[in-house]
Amino acid sequence: MGGRQGAAGSAPEGPRGLPSASGGGAGSVAWELLLPAVSAPARARGRALQTALREAVRSGRLVPGTRMPSSRDLAADLGVSRGLVTEAYEQLTAEGYLRSGRGAGTWVGGAVRAARPRARDLAPRPPGARADFVPGTPDLSLFPRPAWAAAQRGVLAELPHHELGYPDPRGLPRLRTALAELLARRRGVVADPERIVVVSGVAQATTLLGFALHARGLRTVGVEDPGSPQHDGLYAAAGVTPVPVPLDDEGLALGPLRASGVHAVVTTPAHQYPTGIACSARRRAELLDWARSVDGFLLEDDYDGDFRYDRAPVGALQGLDPERVAYSGSVSKSLAPGLRLGWLLVPEALADEVIERKRTMDLGHPTLDQAAFTRFVERGDYDRQLRRCQHAYRERRDALVAALEEHFPGSEVSGIAAGLHVIATLPERYGPEERFLARVTAAGVAVRPLSACTHARTGVDDGVGGGERVPAHARTGVDGGDRGREGVPAHARTGDSAEVRLVLGYAHLSPARVREGIRLMAEAIAR
Amino acid sequence: MGGRQGAAGSAPEGPRGLPSASGGGAGSVAWELLLPAVSAPARARGRALQTALREAVRSGRLVPGTRMPSSRDLAADLGVSRGLVTEAYEQLTAEGYLRSGRGAGTWVGGAVRAARPRARDLAPRPPGARADFVPGTPDLSLFPRPAWAAAQRGVLAELPHHELGYPDPRGLPRLRTALAELLARRRGVVADPERIVVVSGVAQATTLLGFALHARGLRTVGVEDPGSPQHDGLYAAAGVTPVPVPLDDEGLALGPLRASGVHAVVTTPAHQYPTGIACSARRRAELLDWARSVDGFLLEDDYDGDFRYDRAPVGALQGLDPERVAYSGSVSKSLAPGLRLGWLLVPEALADEVIERKRTMDLGHPTLDQAAFTRFVERGDYDRQLRRCQHAYRERRDALVAALEEHFPGSEVSGIAAGLHVIATLPERYGPEERFLARVTAAGVAVRPLSACTHARTGVDDGVGGGERVPAHARTGVDGGDRGREGVPAHARTGDSAEVRLVLGYAHLSPARVREGIRLMAEAIAR
Repeated sequence: MGGRQGAAGSAPEGPRGLPSASGGGAGSVAWELLLPAVSAPARARGRALQTALREAVRSGRLVPGTRMPSSRDLAADLGVSRGLVTEAYEQLTAEGYLRSGRGAGTWVGGAVRAARPRARDLAPRPPGARADFVPGTPDLSLFPRPAWAAAQRGVLAELPHHELGYPDPRGLPRLRTALAELLARRRGVVADPERIVVVSGVAQATTLLGFALHARGLRTVGVEDPGSPQHDGLYAAAGVTPVPVPLDDEGLALGPLRASGVHAVVTTPAHQYPTGIACSARRRAELLDWARSVDGFLLEDDYDGDFRYDRAPVGALQGLDPERVAYSGSVSKSLAPGLRLGWLLVPEALADEVIERKRTMDLGHPTLDQAAFTRFVERGDYDRQLRRCQHAYRERRDALVAALEEHFPGSEVSGIAAGLHVIATLPERYGPEERFLARVTAAGVAVRPLSACTHARTGVDDGVGGGERVPAHARTGVDGGDRGREGVPAHARTGDSAEVRLVLGYAHLSPARVREGIRLMAEAIAR
Repeated sequence: MGGRQGAAGSAPEGPRGLPSASGGGAGSVAWELLLPAVSAPARARGRALQTALREAVRSGRLVPGTRMPSSRDLAADLGVSRGLVTEAYEQLTAEGYLRSGRGAGTWVGGAVRAARPRARDLAPRPPGARADFVPGTPDLSLFPRPAWAAAQRGVLAELPHHELGYPDPRGLPRLRTALAELLARRRGVVADPERIVVVSGVAQATTLLGFALHARGLRTVGVEDPGSPQHDGLYAAAGVTPVPVPLDDEGLALGPLRASGVHAVVTTPAHQYPTGIACSARRRAELLDWARSVDGFLLEDDYDGDFRYDRAPVGALQGLDPERVAYSGSVSKSLAPGLRLGWLLVPEALADEVIERKRTMDLGHPTLDQAAFTRFVERGDYDRQLRRCQHAYRERRDALVAALEEHFPGSEVSGIAAGLHVIATLPERYGPEERFLARVTAAGVAVRPLSACTHARTGVDDGVGGGERVPAHARTGVDGGDRGREGVPAHARTGDSAEVRLVLGYAHLSPARVREGIRLMAEAIAR
C-alpha cells in the first residue's frame, strides 16, 4: 500500500496521536495504518475493516467530527472493493460510530467514549507458602475424575432434550429424591424432596436464608462466636445483621442466646467451626425449645458433617424438628468447591421466599451438573468417594497430631474427632501469639490463629444496634478447665495473647506435607 | 421372631397407632414391627436399627416419655447383639431422640417434632399444547451433545487440580479472555476481561445490576414498555422499582425517558423485545447523551443479538461507551437455558458492587462448566453452533411468515429481521382479541398476545411513586402509519382490542410444526 492520504481535510478537528507514514499534518489520516483489513482473507475483509474502524474511533485515533473519505477514495486507498467500504460505513453508522449527513458525506460520530483504563488488575497472589494450614479446602487431587467423567457422559447420552430448558428453581426432581435418600441415611435428616433446594453451596444457602429471614421482618441473626467469618458477610448482604453468640462446652450458650433478642441463630452442631465442639444432646433439645419459644429458627450449617473418624457421625439437628431447623450442606469438602453444588432443606415457613430468591438469583442450578451428580449419587459413587476421603483425612489428622506431639510437646489438640481441622493450643513458652505468628509467617508457613475467628477481635458486632447487642457479661462463656478434651471451647481465652491457639486445616495436605509443615513451624520458632 | 413384647410398661403414655401383632394394650410395643433391622445384612444392622428407631420417634409411633426396654431385653427381642442396641441408644441419645436418666434407663425424648405434611406439591403441569408459539426457548434438540461431551472430557483430562478450588467470583480468567475476543468480534463490544463477570444467565446479570444500582442510591429503573415481564420482577427483588418507558419507532422514547426521573434504563437495542424494533443510530447517540447527562446507565440486554438473518448484526450499544452501558448476554438461546451460563460486561462504577454481590450469591460459577465452555469457544465450536442455529432459525422464520400469509392473509409481520420471534398483526376480521385468544387456546394452541407485554395492561407501574410516574401524554408513542415495516412499534395500539397482535416464537418448532400450528390456529378461528 502506498502512502496516499485520506480526504479528512474538512474535519473540524484533526486526528490526534495517529502515526502517519507520510508525515502529514493535522487533518491527514494514514488510512492504511488502520488496516489489518487488507491482509485478512477476502471473505473476512469486511468484518476486519469494520473492527479496525470501530477501534480507531474508540481509541480516539479518529476523533468525533472527523470527516471520512468517500467510499470510493477509501476503497482505492485500501485496495478493496467499494461495496465493502460502503457496507462498513452503513454498519458503523447504524451502530453510532459514524454519522452521515444528507448526501454530504460520512463523519465520525460523537457518541463514542472509550473505556476507562482498568482501575485494578487481578489482586496479586501472595507468593506460595512453603506450608499452608489455613482450613477450608479439601484435597483437590481426590476429586474422582474418571467417575465424574462417566457421569457426565451418561447424562449427555440419556438426558431428554426438554430437560435442557429452563430448570425448576428448586432443582431436578430426581436429584432432590436422591438427596433425600442420601441425607436421611447418612445424616439422619428428615428430607422431603419437596423441601430440598439444590443450591450453589452453603454460601448461597446462607444468602437465601438471609433474604427469607429479612422477608419475615428479622433484622438480626445470631452467629457463633468464635465462628466462621463467612456467615457474617453473607447475612449482612441480605440486610440481616449478625449478632455474636458465645459458646460454652455444650455448644451455643443459652443465656446469651436468649438475651440477644435474635429469632434465628446459625449453628454448626456436628463439629463447631472452629472449636470442634459437638453440640450435646441436652443442648440440642434446649436449642429447639428456644426456637419454638421465640417462633424462630436454627440455621444448621453441616459444613463437615460427613467426616467423623472415631465413631458414627452425630445425626443432624434438623432431623429433630424440620420445621424449626434449616439444614445446609454441600459437596465442597467431599468433591470440590469448584462444583458449586449444595443443598438446603428448608422449613415450610421459609420455603416460598427461599425458592423465589433462588429464582431471582439464577433461575436454578445448571441442569447438566445436577444430572451428573444425580447419577453419581444413585450409582453409589458418592458413598465411595466419602469413604475414600474419610480414610485419607483420618490419616492426615493422625499425622498432624503426631507431628505436634513431636515438635511442640505439651500442646493440647481439640476438635480432632471430626472435620478437616483441629484446634492446637501450644504451651505458653511458644508465645506470645503475635511473635509466634510473625515468625512462622516469615518462614513461609500460613496459619490461622483462633483469635481471627472471634467477633470480639474482628469488631463485627460494632454494627449491631444497642438494643440487640449481647451484654458483655453474657459473652464470657466458660473459663478454664478441661482444656485439650474435645468439646471444650478455647475461645474464652483468646484475649490472653501469651498462649498460641491455632486453627490447623490438614485435609488438603498429604501426611508428608503435614509433617514437613509442622517441622518448618518448629524451626521458625527455635531460631 | 416371636411375638414377645418389649418392656415399655412404665412409660407415662403408651405408644399411639402402633399395630401390635400380639394385641397388647397401651404400654405395649411390638418391637419387631420397628425392625427392618433384623433382615438387614449383619454389618448394616446397627444403622438400620437406628434409622428405624428415629423414624418411630419422628412419626409419633414412639411418643415422648415412652420408656425404652433395657438393651438386654430389646436385643433378645430382636435377635441382635446387645452391643448393637447399646450403640443405637447412645447414638440416638447424642442426637436428642432418646434421653437417658442417670442409670435409670432410656426414654423417648421430647425434642422431636415431625415435619408438617407438605403444603403443596409440584405445580401440576398444564396439559401439553398441540402447538406452542410462546417465545423464549430455543430448539433444545440443537444442543451439540458430542461437541459438548468432548469439551467436558478435555477439561477433566487437563484441568489442574488447584482450579477445582473456590473460583474467582468473576469467572475463570481464561474464559473471560475468550469471551472478550468472542464478544468484540461478534457483537462489537469493548470487552476488557477484567470487566467481564461470568454469570448464570441474563436473569442473574439483571439481579446483580439491580443490587448495584440500589447500592448507588437508585430506587427506580426504566424498563421498556412493552417489554420483557422478567426484568420487572428481578429489579423489584433487588429493591429497585421498574418504571415503564414507552417506545417510538426508533427505540426508547426520549421525552418520557427524561420525564421519568430514572437514572438507568433497560434496553434491547439489537431487536427490541417484543416489538422487534432495531434502535436507530440517532437514538443510540441520544440515549448515551441522556445517560451522560444524568450520570446514569443503559442496561443492554442482548438476549438474541446473535441471530440476525438478512444482514450483519447491529453491533452492541456497549461498544459506544463501556462506562455508561452494562451489557449482558447468555448461551440460553444458542446452546441451552439449562446450562445457566452468561456474561455481564460492567462499567467501572458498578463493578465492585456487582462482583461482591456475585460472591454472596454463589461465590462464582461452577468451574467445570466454565472450563468446558472455554474450550468450546476457543476451538471454534461456539461459532459453528451459532451458524447452525442461525441457519435453522432462518428457515423456521421463513416457514412462519409463509404460513401466516397463507392462513391469515392480510396479516402484517414485523420484527422479522432478527431474533427468535415475530410480531404478527392480524386483520380486524379475526378480532376481537379476547375471542381470538379464547378460541385458539381452546384448540390447544398456546400464543402470547402483545398486550401481555405492556405495563399499562399488567399494572406494573401502579407501584411507582407519583413523582416518578410517566405522564400519560408521554406514554402515547407513535400512532398509526408504517405498520408491517420492521422497526415500527405496534404497542401504541394495544388498547384497541379489535386487532389481534401476537408475539410468535418459532425457534423451538420445526418448520413442519410451525406450519401445522398456524393451520390449527386458522381452523380454530374458522369454526
